[in-house]
Amino acid sequence: MADFNQVAEAFVKFYYETFDSNRQNLTPLYREGSMLTFEGQQFSGANAITEKLVSLPFQKVAHRISTIDAQPSNASGTILVSVTGQLLVDEEQNPQMFSQTFHLVPEGGSYWVFNDIFRLNYA
Amino acid sequence: MADFNQVAEAFVKFYYETFDSNRQNLTPLYREGSMLTFEGQQFSGANAITEKLVSLPFQKVAHRISTIDAQPSNASGTILVSVTGQLLVDEEQNPQMFSQTFHLVPEGGSYWVFNDIFRLNYA
Repeated sequence: MADFNQVAEAFVKFYYETFDSNRQNLTPLYREGSMLTFEGQQFSGANAITEKLVSLPFQKVAHRISTIDAQPSNASGTILVSVTGQLLVDEEQNPQMFSQTFHLVPEGGSYWVFNDIFRLNYA
Repeated sequence: MADFNQVAEAFVKFYYETFDSNRQNLTPLYREGSMLTFEGQQFSGANAITEKLVSLPFQKVAHRISTIDAQPSNASGTILVSVTGQLLVDEEQNPQMFSQTFHLVPEGGSYWVFNDIFRLNYA
């Protein structure tokens, strides 16, 4: 089994690089059983999740990662990943803080996202 | 199966009320296989986790919950819970923002905490 911290770091790096460059390309990370809760709104399935992410009302986006924490979530190689960071959209100068939790499932040498929960953190 | 949103809300209410009144009483929520990552430090097992929580250097603490999001995390009734909120310690007037993720496992009509990841969110 791959080291779960290494998997988490590689996943997070790939996820946000893809999100910030072309979020349509996130589709293969989700499956029919995947769930996204985005600011309290629920979506399920790769297509509905990607549609939501692509429809977010900004042209430019950059995620700056502050922390990545990971733990094995059961005996079959699934991994829980919790991320905190800052989000910069379009020409906005003030970053927004966010937290996001992923639950990753191993499959064929890679991982897909079963659970995804995203929240902006307001002071 | 109980509604996962109701379980999550009841758990979060109970967890932080217990934390804020007497954190020693959190022990029964954890088991030998439980994991806590607290500000990047890792602990495992109910005893080590409770010792860490009890040893935190404040006398008074109050959690104010901002958001609770929950999803089923597999087919056997486990629940992923993501919380954001504010933390007030001792006589400090300015709350600190936090995010915390719990992974709950059903057992005998109740739930215990398999995964627990806590982070303060710095602006």
